Amino acid sequence: MLEEKVEYGNLYDFYGNLLNDSQKRTARLYYMEDLSLQEIGDELNISRQAVFDSLKRARKNLDESESKLGLLKRFEENKEAFKLISKKLKGLEELGDLNSSQKESLKEIYELISDIIESD
Amino acid sequence: MLEEKVEYGNLYDFYGNLLNDSQKRTARLYYMEDLSLQEIGDELNISRQAVFDSLKRARKNLDESESKLGLLKRFEENKEAFKLISKKLKGLEELGDLNSSQKESLKEIYELISDIIESD
Repeated sequence: MLEEKVEYGNLYDFYGNLLNDSQKRTARLYYMEDLSLQEIGDELNISRQAVFDSLKRARKNLDESESKLGLLKRFEENKEAFKLISKKLKGLEELGDLNSSQKESLKEIYELISDIIESD
Repeated sequence: MLEEKVEYGNLYDFYGNLLNDSQKRTARLYYMEDLSLQEIGDELNISRQAVFDSLKRARKNLDESESKLGLLKRFEENKEAFKLISKKLKGLEELGDLNSSQKESLKEIYELISDIIESD
């Protein structure tokens, strides 16, 4: 359930703008703002069942977008590569001494990588 | 003209599957296989003007997809970051000696980065 929220949150982040307005609204409130079905229904003045149906259509569309484009998968593969690079960089320090300029430069590289991992 | 081909080639690579079949076909032949309008017309048995019109609609759709989703921009920013990281890693060797294990590890990191830059 929680995993589903994270997964569709990521898909929404990528493809949310391909949804129609009503699906975009319910998906945003559910996956990004973490409201319950009832809370979303209250906010939009529609039934809990209508929220459920809207989310179901939104999920179908998000799945179809990823199935057509596969861009989230590409991004996540890059992210995994960044994590591996980050780990290997740490290893560099353990494999032998680095001088202060090298340490400084390594720090900058870490920062670049962190920026990317966090922004995705 | 050449830049336009590269730019729409990248957009096609990302969003081509959102085009309808006919736009997908002309865009693929023009942007990916580098055929001329006349050659595409001959291959599909349609006029040069019809190819032109189809490509124009395809470009409009690809532009709209990027404007909605902005994923190519995100990818290219990551790619720039990878290039910068690659440059800084090279700097590490110039800033001081590394032992053979560190050099080996650095080589692996370069390879990971090259794989990503080339696959995008």
